[in-house]
Amino acid sequence: MLRPISRSLCRFNLLGTRSCSNASEKLVITEVDDKTGYATVTLNRPPVNSLNLELLKSISEALDELQNNKSRGMILTSSSKTVFSAGLDIMEMYKPKPERLKDFWSTLQDVWFKLYGSAFPTVAAINGHSPAGGCLLALCCEYRIMCPNYTIGLNETQLGIVAPTWFQASMRNTISRRESELALTLGTLFSTDQALKVGLIDEIAANKEEAIAKAAVFLDKFRKISPQARAMTKQALRSKDIMQLEDNRSQDIDLFVYAVTQPKVQKSLELYLEGLKKRASA
Amino acid sequence: MLRPISRSLCRFNLLGTRSCSNASEKLVITEVDDKTGYATVTLNRPPVNSLNLELLKSISEALDELQNNKSRGMILTSSSKTVFSAGLDIMEMYKPKPERLKDFWSTLQDVWFKLYGSAFPTVAAINGHSPAGGCLLALCCEYRIMCPNYTIGLNETQLGIVAPTWFQASMRNTISRRESELALTLGTLFSTDQALKVGLIDEIAANKEEAIAKAAVFLDKFRKISPQARAMTKQALRSKDIMQLEDNRSQDIDLFVYAVTQPKVQKSLELYLEGLKKRASA
Amino acid sequence: MLRPISRSLCRFNLLGTRSCSNASEKLVITEVDDKTGYATVTLNRPPVNSLNLELLKSISEALDELQNNKSRGMILTSSSKTVFSAGLDIMEMYKPKPERLKDFWSTLQDVWFKLYGSAFPTVAAINGHSPAGGCLLALCCEYRIMCPNYTIGLNETQLGIVAPTWFQASMRNTISRRESELALTLGTLFSTDQALKVGLIDEIAANKEEAIAKAAVFLDKFRKISPQARAMTKQALRSKDIMQLEDNRSQDIDLFVYAVTQPKVQKSLELYLEGLKKRASA
Repeated sequence: MLRPISRSLCRFNLLGTRSCSNASEKLVITEVDDKTGYATVTLNRPPVNSLNLELLKSISEALDELQNNKSRGMILTSSSKTVFSAGLDIMEMYKPKPERLKDFWSTLQDVWFKLYGSAFPTVAAINGHSPAGGCLLALCCEYRIMCPNYTIGLNETQLGIVAPTWFQASMRNTISRRESELALTLGTLFSTDQALKVGLIDEIAANKEEAIAKAAVFLDKFRKISPQARAMTKQALRSKDIMQLEDNRSQDIDLFVYAVTQPKVQKSLELYLEGLKKRASA
Repeated sequence: MLRPISRSLCRFNLLGTRSCSNASEKLVITEVDDKTGYATVTLNRPPVNSLNLELLKSISEALDELQNNKSRGMILTSSSKTVFSAGLDIMEMYKPKPERLKDFWSTLQDVWFKLYGSAFPTVAAINGHSPAGGCLLALCCEYRIMCPNYTIGLNETQLGIVAPTWFQASMRNTISRRESELALTLGTLFSTDQALKVGLIDEIAANKEEAIAKAAVFLDKFRKISPQARAMTKQALRSKDIMQLEDNRSQDIDLFVYAVTQPKVQKSLELYLEGLKKRASA
Repeated sequence: MLRPISRSLCRFNLLGTRSCSNASEKLVITEVDDKTGYATVTLNRPPVNSLNLELLKSISEALDELQNNKSRGMILTSSSKTVFSAGLDIMEMYKPKPERLKDFWSTLQDVWFKLYGSAFPTVAAINGHSPAGGCLLALCCEYRIMCPNYTIGLNETQLGIVAPTWFQASMRNTISRRESELALTLGTLFSTDQALKVGLIDEIAANKEEAIAKAAVFLDKFRKISPQARAMTKQALRSKDIMQLEDNRSQDIDLFVYAVTQPKVQKSLELYLEGLKKRASA
C-alpha cells in the first residue's frame, strides 16, 4: 500500500479517505499490449483515484494520445486494490479559486466528450468501488466488466447534490429509462450482482486480470470491422447527448460554479471535512 | 356503500356505471400520517372515480397543498372497492359547453404537470381497475403497487380514440418503447400479473392496506436523501416530456375540443350513452 | 428453383449470390385473403431479393395500393426458400449513374416512410436470412415472426459502411438503446434464437406457412379497434423518427451519393465484385 509522503500534502475526498500527491508517480499510466494493440489506461492517484484537476487533465491527455494513435481499443482500470475511482475530489469544490474551479469542470466535460464519443472502442475493467464520477467514467465506456463485492452508481442525491444532465444521459444510454429514474432519484449504489441484473455492467470477472482478459475478448470482436464505420456508428448513436452538452457547455460550467459557491454548500462542505478530520485523528 | 341521492344527479361514465354527486362528501380526501408525514390522497367520487372537472380540480388542489407543505411523500389511492379510477368522465364530452370543455382539459393538463413533475415522491396504490385516465394518474407516479385481479392500461384505441402524446410519454417513461407501441396501438388492458411482467407496475399487494404499507416502504428509501436534490433530479429526467406539453398547451386544448365536438364523435357518444341507459333500465 | 435467363442479365449482390431479371415475373406479388382481408406482400426478385431500384419501386407501389385500399393489414414475406432479403443491391452503387443513384436512395426513403409510418398494421414473416436492408424492412413492420436457423441484423459495420440514422432509429424503436449500440457497432447478425432473446423478433415459426398464420393471429388483435385511432397512435409514436428524416431528406441523399462515389469506396466495390466473379467461376 502506498503511504502518504506528508500529512500536509493529503487531501480528503468524498469517500473520507486520504489522497496524496507523489510527484514520482504518473497519475495515469498507459500501457499498450504489443500483440493486440489494446491500451490499458490505469488511474493512479492513490489511494482512491479521486478526480481532481490534475488527474482529469492526465486522463484527457491519455485519451488524446490514443485518439491520435488510432488506438484499436482502450481498457480503463485502477491501480487501487479496492477502488476504481471515488469520484470528484471534494477539495476542488471547497473554498475554490474561481479560475481553477471553472477549469476543473471544463476538464471534466473534456474527458466526457473524449471518452463518451471516442472513435476507438472502450471497456471499463471496474476493479473496485465506483461511485458518482467513478461510475460516470465507467458509463462512458462501451462495455463494463466488474469484480465482485464492490458498488457502483450515480449516488449524487445521497450526497445532497444533483447529477448533471450529461451524467444522467450516460446512464440512460446504458440502462432503461425506468431503472435510470429509480437509480438517479434514489442515488442507488448497486452491488456487482445488482449492477449485472439491471444492465449497468455487462459481465463479472473474478479479479482485475480476468477483467482485463475479458475486456480484450470484447475488443477482439471489432478486429474485422472497419474502425471508421464503427466510430461513425457509435458517434451517430451518441450524438444527441453530445450535442446537448456542446450546446450548453458554458451554461453548464456557470451552473456548477454557482451551485458550488453558495454559502450553504460551502458550509456543508466545511462540516463534512471537519467530520473527516475528527474521524481521521480519532 | 354510498347510495345515489337521486337519479337525476347521476352521470354515466366510460365503464357504464353511474357516478353521483354527494355534497356532503369530499371528492378527494387527504390524510397525513403523523408518524411518517406521508399523505394518502384518496379519490372519492363514487362509484368509479370518473374524472370530471370537479374531481380534477380537487386533485389539482390536493397536489398544490402537498407541494406548499413540502410533503415527504404522497400515496394515491381510491375509496372504491373495485376501481382505482375509470378514467375521464364521458359526460364532460357529450354536448359540452365550450368553456367548461376547455377548462376540463386544461385542468387535466394541470393535474398531469403537478403529478408528473411533483417535487415530492409519489406512489400509486392501485386498489382497483385503472383504465385510460386512471392509468395515466398511476403512470404519473414514481412507483406503482397494484392489487390482484384488476386491469390497467391506456386502452384508448379500444374506445376509438387516441391517447394524447403526453399520455404516451408517461407510458414510455415507464415501460420500453417496444412494449409501449404494442400496448398503445392495441389499447391493451393488462391484468395485474401482466402489468408486473411488462414493468407497468412495480409490485403486487394482496389488498389496499398492504399496498399502502408497501408504498410507505418505498417512500422510506428517500428519508436520508436531500428532498431538493431528489426533486431536481426527477424534474430533469422528466423535463423533456414536461416542456413538450408546456410548449403545446393551447394547441393540445384546441385539438381536444376540435376532436370532441365533431358531429361523428358526438353521435357515437350519444349511441354509447343510449346503450348504457337501456342496459341500466333492463 | 428459378434459373437465370442469361448470364449477362445477372447481377451480383451483397451476399455474393446472383440476382437475375425475369420479365415474366412480378417483383412484388400482393395477394389479399378474401376471408380476413389481409394482404400478403411477397418479395420476388430471385434469388435473394436484393433491393435494386425496380424492386424498391415495386414495394413502394404495393404499399400505396394497400394504403389507398384501407388495408386491414399486411404480411411481408419472401418467395425465396432461404432469404427474406439480402439487402441493398450492390450493383446500384458500383459505377452508378448519378440520377439513378439519387432515385435509388430516394425510393428507399419512400419505402421507409410508407412502411414505418403506414396506417395499416404490418407484420414481417421472415422466412430466410435478413441482413442489412432486409433487416430494415423487417424493423419497419410492427411485428416480426421468423423461421429457425436464419440470421438477421443491421450488419453494416461488418461491410465497412455506416447504417444511416433512420436505420438506427428503426432498430432503437424495437430493442433497447443498450442492445442497439452493441448490435450496430458490432454489426451483429443474430440467429433466430438470439433475435428472439434480444427482442429483435417477437415470435418463431417452424416454417413460412406457420409464420403467415401467426401473423394473421397478430393482425386479428386489431379487428375490434378503430383503424383511424390505431393509425394516429402508431404515427404519433413514430413521428419523431419520421420528422427527423423528412427534415433531412435531401441532405441524406447527398450524403449517400457523396459516400458511394468516393474513389476509395468504388475501388473496394470493384475488388469485392471481382472476388465474387472469381468465386462464381471457380
